[in-house]
Amino acid sequence: MIRGFGSDNFSGVLPEVFKALEEVSYGHQPSYEEDIYTEKAIRDFKSVFGENCEVFFVYNGTGANVLSLSAYTQSYHAIICTETAHIYTDECGAIEKQTGCKLLPVPTFDGKLSIGLIENHMNGFGDQHHSQPKMISLTQCTELGTVYTPEELKEICDYAHAHGLFVHMDGARLANAVVSLGCDPKAITVGAGIDVLSFGGSKNGMMFGEAVLFFNPDLIKEIKYVRKQQMQLHSKSRFIAAQFSALLKDDLWLRAAAHANRMAQMLSGEALKIPGVSLTQEVQGNEVFAIIPREKIDILQKKCFFYTWDENASEVRWVCSFDTTESDIIEFVNILREEIC
Amino acid sequence: MIRGFGSDNFSGVLPEVFKALEEVSYGHQPSYEEDIYTEKAIRDFKSVFGENCEVFFVYNGTGANVLSLSAYTQSYHAIICTETAHIYTDECGAIEKQTGCKLLPVPTFDGKLSIGLIENHMNGFGDQHHSQPKMISLTQCTELGTVYTPEELKEICDYAHAHGLFVHMDGARLANAVVSLGCDPKAITVGAGIDVLSFGGSKNGMMFGEAVLFFNPDLIKEIKYVRKQQMQLHSKSRFIAAQFSALLKDDLWLRAAAHANRMAQMLSGEALKIPGVSLTQEVQGNEVFAIIPREKIDILQKKCFFYTWDENASEVRWVCSFDTTESDIIEFVNILREEIC
Amino acid sequence: MIRGFGSDNFSGVLPEVFKALEEVSYGHQPSYEEDIYTEKAIRDFKSVFGENCEVFFVYNGTGANVLSLSAYTQSYHAIICTETAHIYTDECGAIEKQTGCKLLPVPTFDGKLSIGLIENHMNGFGDQHHSQPKMISLTQCTELGTVYTPEELKEICDYAHAHGLFVHMDGARLANAVVSLGCDPKAITVGAGIDVLSFGGSKNGMMFGEAVLFFNPDLIKEIKYVRKQQMQLHSKSRFIAAQFSALLKDDLWLRAAAHANRMAQMLSGEALKIPGVSLTQEVQGNEVFAIIPREKIDILQKKCFFYTWDENASEVRWVCSFDTTESDIIEFVNILREEIC
Amino acid sequence: MIRGFGSDNFSGVLPEVFKALEEVSYGHQPSYEEDIYTEKAIRDFKSVFGENCEVFFVYNGTGANVLSLSAYTQSYHAIICTETAHIYTDECGAIEKQTGCKLLPVPTFDGKLSIGLIENHMNGFGDQHHSQPKMISLTQCTELGTVYTPEELKEICDYAHAHGLFVHMDGARLANAVVSLGCDPKAITVGAGIDVLSFGGSKNGMMFGEAVLFFNPDLIKEIKYVRKQQMQLHSKSRFIAAQFSALLKDDLWLRAAAHANRMAQMLSGEALKIPGVSLTQEVQGNEVFAIIPREKIDILQKKCFFYTWDENASEVRWVCSFDTTESDIIEFVNILREEIC
Repeated sequence: MIRGFGSDNFSGVLPEVFKALEEVSYGHQPSYEEDIYTEKAIRDFKSVFGENCEVFFVYNGTGANVLSLSAYTQSYHAIICTETAHIYTDECGAIEKQTGCKLLPVPTFDGKLSIGLIENHMNGFGDQHHSQPKMISLTQCTELGTVYTPEELKEICDYAHAHGLFVHMDGARLANAVVSLGCDPKAITVGAGIDVLSFGGSKNGMMFGEAVLFFNPDLIKEIKYVRKQQMQLHSKSRFIAAQFSALLKDDLWLRAAAHANRMAQMLSGEALKIPGVSLTQEVQGNEVFAIIPREKIDILQKKCFFYTWDENASEVRWVCSFDTTESDIIEFVNILREEIC
Repeated sequence: MIRGFGSDNFSGVLPEVFKALEEVSYGHQPSYEEDIYTEKAIRDFKSVFGENCEVFFVYNGTGANVLSLSAYTQSYHAIICTETAHIYTDECGAIEKQTGCKLLPVPTFDGKLSIGLIENHMNGFGDQHHSQPKMISLTQCTELGTVYTPEELKEICDYAHAHGLFVHMDGARLANAVVSLGCDPKAITVGAGIDVLSFGGSKNGMMFGEAVLFFNPDLIKEIKYVRKQQMQLHSKSRFIAAQFSALLKDDLWLRAAAHANRMAQMLSGEALKIPGVSLTQEVQGNEVFAIIPREKIDILQKKCFFYTWDENASEVRWVCSFDTTESDIIEFVNILREEIC
Repeated sequence: MIRGFGSDNFSGVLPEVFKALEEVSYGHQPSYEEDIYTEKAIRDFKSVFGENCEVFFVYNGTGANVLSLSAYTQSYHAIICTETAHIYTDECGAIEKQTGCKLLPVPTFDGKLSIGLIENHMNGFGDQHHSQPKMISLTQCTELGTVYTPEELKEICDYAHAHGLFVHMDGARLANAVVSLGCDPKAITVGAGIDVLSFGGSKNGMMFGEAVLFFNPDLIKEIKYVRKQQMQLHSKSRFIAAQFSALLKDDLWLRAAAHANRMAQMLSGEALKIPGVSLTQEVQGNEVFAIIPREKIDILQKKCFFYTWDENASEVRWVCSFDTTESDIIEFVNILREEIC
Repeated sequence: MIRGFGSDNFSGVLPEVFKALEEVSYGHQPSYEEDIYTEKAIRDFKSVFGENCEVFFVYNGTGANVLSLSAYTQSYHAIICTETAHIYTDECGAIEKQTGCKLLPVPTFDGKLSIGLIENHMNGFGDQHHSQPKMISLTQCTELGTVYTPEELKEICDYAHAHGLFVHMDGARLANAVVSLGCDPKAITVGAGIDVLSFGGSKNGMMFGEAVLFFNPDLIKEIKYVRKQQMQLHSKSRFIAAQFSALLKDDLWLRAAAHANRMAQMLSGEALKIPGVSLTQEVQGNEVFAIIPREKIDILQKKCFFYTWDENASEVRWVCSFDTTESDIIEFVNILREEIC
């Protein structure tokens, strides 16, 4: 069985990141983020996203999202997101359990929120019977592989702030979006008005660890206690910090994402040449959503693993990673062609 | 500044463990514990603790304790522990927040629970106004460096079970206890009647990761959902699993702990020779609790870091690790002698 | 300003119920449901709903719903309901906060669930990333004034049970449904397979208090502790119990509801005669949903209070109560006619 | 069996309070505190406690305490109280479940906190591993029938505020304390620096309902949403409000408490004349704590109900109520004398 397209978290660790782990694996360092590597990683983040942010390291994406959303909410608040949002469908109710908040899902075609969609839930303010909308959570790249432009994000953030809401970005695949847009990372985060960012590490070549960046440090609750109580504070903190420093160094995070995005372009381009294959979403990041003949899905998954996205629609998802190779794609497209034609 | 005695989580990673990480760092593996390494690590645990257990990997000690205690409790239950228990004093209220349970603390001299102490909280059963005692949580080695014998544990477990309670062992330093007692690991866990064990990885030479072992798999709630909702499921699961397999292989975990324990014996033995130094607890594991002249604490900490345990009593804590060396100790004892005499 | 149609909880107390309060207002009785009146009220409920139920009294409808849903769920479960369900829109996120569960809302035209609608959320079973569907919560009469038939309910309950789910009925207006169907109360509750019922008191002429009836007493968690922890146990319990005994005596609850239903029929019949007034839902209980000219809503509400239901649709809600009189309706219809024609 | 001394919540309703209920039991009123009676009751509270307070009505004492403590805390905070505090021992863990906070109990002899006792828990500030002390909760009269002086309260409040903590008073028996001290109610609440007060209704002659008074309205969270989510908002709100207006009118609440206190004085005075009876606490409110011969407790309880307080110490609790009569006491003392002598 060849390397598949199941998820970017099927991949291993970027060599540069692994080397950084090795370099800090000996000797003693204070634990719980009092080590020198944590300090350095925070500086590295600030050099990318600006000085006016607070950086908190956590273990995983769900932890990052929960911490982000906890910071600005009380349990009687509501969080608006898409129906396909990871926080809504893939975190086993962690947001509800941890924050007590209600999630208000919005159906979309392309995984992207818009003011029009958000407005459907902008009601009940001041009514004590109604969970009070307080946050908008969006994902960049979206769970459907699409990308918000800086303008789209700014519009949503401006709208949110004008109505007293905060905006969270689930950036598990932020690097892929930055590369896709060819913009400064600030342009689609702090610059667009995002209040808090889950910055993805694991899906982009790290072994473990994510970061949460608060761009409104004055407004947030005492986050360090929240993180500890949410079981997201790592004792041997240098091992998350060193990975992030390596990832941010010389734009490794963007180079890794650029490769994955290129692979997705190649894959979608080649697959489209096969009769019977069509795309359901524009390929903007590292994910390809395609419709293929229903009766071929099973047999293809056995030869090269990927997930079915929507069984009814015969829609599948192919995810490329930093370590996907051109020959992986050529081989997979060959299998596709063979099975389908 | 020389290597200090702050905590065993100031240390890095055991070379054998690091090598195991390297071996699995390339190539694709299914995520979320569907990889072959997770399967192997579970088998490795069963070969130590017996077949009748369920093994769940988590990120850290607080996560392990919360998952352990969630499994057997509802929010109207109470958990009996010592006043010095990590779950009571060092987890920022994670147990209360995550389980909703009340913690019932017991003062002790040596960090060890006993039936007599437990009985103080064994009341209010059936009274709807009263949180219902449902679990006993004890720590092995205790937070004071002492060790329960198999007999002491069995007595507590028998008592608990006779009264409808379950027993959790916080085994962040279980290896040190096994070595100290020279017993089979089963003798102080499943064999003594422990229902659920937090098995420590990080403090014993891992980079990250802990394990929870349920010895009553039939009785527990659907733990996999609980773990996910508690943000403790790692996507690239092979990286926790491979570490544990390396740690359990050829008793590495016990050899590492044996070294740390020996260092603690050496340190306490040498320190006791210095007039003005006395011990407050028997040294049974890798921790030394000592009283030293109050006015010397600050200056000593600057030369070689350790924590003050009880400021009023002028009591300090020195923790040895798998990588503490004899020369670390000789040097530290020289500093101690110089400053104190 | 005349008596309006805002809500059935704008009404006072049924005279028979008030008299019952008076009769128990003197002298001492054990508190916390150890009084003789609580015992009697439980017997009264069993004489209506059968012996195989457990009855718990609480303060209000939200309390009843939360207790009902807590009994069968863990925090990683999901609860399927309609988008208009009281638990989804009108309880300020109490369900999420108190149970930790995710609510899965279903859009409907008439406020009624059906297997087809439920099936949209029946997925992700066994997937640790996915909140596990465990309960279906439906409302009888629905929030749109419609009524499930016994057959419809049985179909849903059979489907739920076949898939390992439980069914909760929010019966804040159960009496109106029983009367509307002319059936035995058992036929639409325990007889149809409902697992737990919020039995409404306040909206049907009580001063305060609701009841929760568990028809699966063997399966539920230790509810008395849950209720206490949820702050729903009344100390002077006789005052809830005595009201319920009065309400159930000689079918007072059904007679009160029958009157309210008749008033709703009269109101809808008369209103329909006015050009420019149309109904959006069949009037089956005590609620009327009507479309009236948008520009008249404000002025009408000032003359006789009622709520706007859907501003965009120019839809309003008129609720009749046990104490609504024919002259209230005649007067209101006159006002309507005057303003609209 | 004569009227006993089990609890002040064994009593019924003050006639004046019942009359007030009757007066509002007919006709329509807006629900959820938009009625005129709620407005009036709030004014009545302000006329007693000053204009600078916010008044929220709830169902019961546990609800009042939870709402009070929720207002100033986040889940990573800790609340300092006595080991005998109602919130610690008698609310089935409601505080932990609802707020997520840790309770830090202090042993006392007389149920009263002092700065010395509080100081034992004033540590770990700024340490992310440690629940952050944020509130002090004290009870007036205490659960042991003793009373804080205005000076004692002020000292605690000043200390709390100087350290960034808030002070909650559980005033389930506040009236008894006011009467006992002969002071202005403000002197032991807002005047002493109390930040939030649970004002007891049920134990002092109401049918149901308590009030929470916030004396720091600017600092608190949006309490109306919290109350709703905690299931403590009554729909037919006039029925709590009218009771409180009646209770506050012409100092009825103080007259009722004064009677109960007098009865406790009479009871303790007469009981002390019996050899073999001694008191364990000064009788300052409406409760008497006495040691009586162990072997007589059972038989006495059967003749006239009261609770055993401390079985080991053979200590019992006798509570007087607004409706306790002199002849109740004479009869009970006769029984006591007969049995004991």
